[in-house]
Amino acid sequence: MTVKRQILVSEVGPRDGLQSINTIMPTASKLQWIAWEHACGVREIEVGSFVSPKVLPQMADTAEVVRGAKKLPNLTIAVLVPNRHGCEAAIQAGADKISIPLSVSETHSIKNVRRTHAQMLDEIKQCMTLIEQCSSTNRPHFEVGLSTAFGCTIEGIVPEHNVIELAKKVLDLGVAEVGLSDTTGMGNPAQLERLVTGIWAQCGSERLTGVHLHNTRGQGLANVLRALDLGISTIDSSLGGLGGCPFAPGASGNIVTEDLVFLLESMGYDTGIDASKLIEVRNRVEKLLPSEAWFGFTSAAGLPLGWTQ
Amino acid sequence: MTVKRQILVSEVGPRDGLQSINTIMPTASKLQWIAWEHACGVREIEVGSFVSPKVLPQMADTAEVVRGAKKLPNLTIAVLVPNRHGCEAAIQAGADKISIPLSVSETHSIKNVRRTHAQMLDEIKQCMTLIEQCSSTNRPHFEVGLSTAFGCTIEGIVPEHNVIELAKKVLDLGVAEVGLSDTTGMGNPAQLERLVTGIWAQCGSERLTGVHLHNTRGQGLANVLRALDLGISTIDSSLGGLGGCPFAPGASGNIVTEDLVFLLESMGYDTGIDASKLIEVRNRVEKLLPSEAWFGFTSAAGLPLGWTQ
Repeated sequence: MTVKRQILVSEVGPRDGLQSINTIMPTASKLQWIAWEHACGVREIEVGSFVSPKVLPQMADTAEVVRGAKKLPNLTIAVLVPNRHGCEAAIQAGADKISIPLSVSETHSIKNVRRTHAQMLDEIKQCMTLIEQCSSTNRPHFEVGLSTAFGCTIEGIVPEHNVIELAKKVLDLGVAEVGLSDTTGMGNPAQLERLVTGIWAQCGSERLTGVHLHNTRGQGLANVLRALDLGISTIDSSLGGLGGCPFAPGASGNIVTEDLVFLLESMGYDTGIDASKLIEVRNRVEKLLPSEAWFGFTSAAGLPLGWTQ
Repeated sequence: MTVKRQILVSEVGPRDGLQSINTIMPTASKLQWIAWEHACGVREIEVGSFVSPKVLPQMADTAEVVRGAKKLPNLTIAVLVPNRHGCEAAIQAGADKISIPLSVSETHSIKNVRRTHAQMLDEIKQCMTLIEQCSSTNRPHFEVGLSTAFGCTIEGIVPEHNVIELAKKVLDLGVAEVGLSDTTGMGNPAQLERLVTGIWAQCGSERLTGVHLHNTRGQGLANVLRALDLGISTIDSSLGGLGGCPFAPGASGNIVTEDLVFLLESMGYDTGIDASKLIEVRNRVEKLLPSEAWFGFTSAAGLPLGWTQ
């Protein structure tokens, strides 16, 4: 018997989805959504971000969501932070995994978080100090997400050597891991291969194990396939493709969790997620947010006759 | 300088798209659509099918469309035929390429064209006789499309050895080539790889060079990527994802030509197609069929800033 290769599907809907829409979902509904996905077998969920509630009121209850979600067993509670203050709040709330985005396009960084690369690298260093002060049993995993790594809606093409150099700078600070984000949905599989293998060659393959890809131009799952071919083991996605990046004009469309799980399980990867239950959850969450744009094809077509996992 | 690998994008919208919808497009509009895509650099278009006008009145003018489209230089005019009568009409009209679908699921074959495998193989033999009677300068390329090769909406799972065995039977009749069709959008990249390499091992790689994939469950371009990795050189798609198979309940959604061309050109393949002009054509044709369901993400998001081909 062959042991199936495990792939971690990291659900980002409650963060990336909800921060991109105007509707503010009540805390109880967020926790319901998280519990529903957990019951399907999802084992990592980005539940919110610790940003100013003035900028993103949708995320004002993130600490409460983290505390509520922590009651679920075997679930990694991930959060996004834009800076050291957010990192402090995330540690205090008890997040298991903390990501900070660093935009490879400096123009995008300045527009998005009002910080240059130098300022962001300093911010990252300060976050690391905070993380290192946690007791070893209670230390969250810390990761830097390289956003606009495949192109920028303001700068256009982002040279690949810039991505690789910035990854090296971040990892040289002692950060455990970087992630690659196609924030603007400009990526293609050949580019993804060059970026992943370029960073691996410079920094080691254990320092980049996850990707965050968008479906803005319909290329999401093709890019996922190439990431899987290379050996990437964590793929971000959003239930019903909710959300994207609110600061990149024209950019929208996360990868759809249901379509991703269908791809992975059909190919023989083990996600631990029940695809049929997940489609039910998608339909339930869609009813909670009826005025938003929902994506995805597997939920519309249904799982194929005779399909098993 | 590296020579880019050429991929033939075979547009099936005027056939697979138009036969799936209720609107009957006037002949002049069909020819306009074909000429517009030809002007973008598209070099193969399936312009219609020679079926009974009682079954598919949308296709009643196929002979006229073939004759009109033949005026365009450097364009392969492909058509679909269900049987020898259609093949005769296609030859008479002057089609360059004739495909006949053969459903690997016998239940689907009986429901779709009211013929068993044995009857279809006999039909294919009779088509070959007709093709062989053409003068060598005027002989259309003849191909058998193995439909429901990735699964059937009636039978469910279609065993892979059935697909490979049926491919061998067809090719043993002397047919130049088979194609693989994911009629029902159930396919995944691992399955595609097993089917392609299985047929190649039995029959030779020159006997299967094209695939017809659907996006029913969002897997279309991931399946295309694996086909490209293997060396497949012809990919079918439909402008705006129009159409699918009208006889497979629940099945819909061809691969979107615009998204496919964006994938291919971004990866460095040479399609000969101007992506920007193609999006304009999609918008023009959409206006001709405003009440139909149109798909595709690249046309909505636009080509990325700084993107060139």
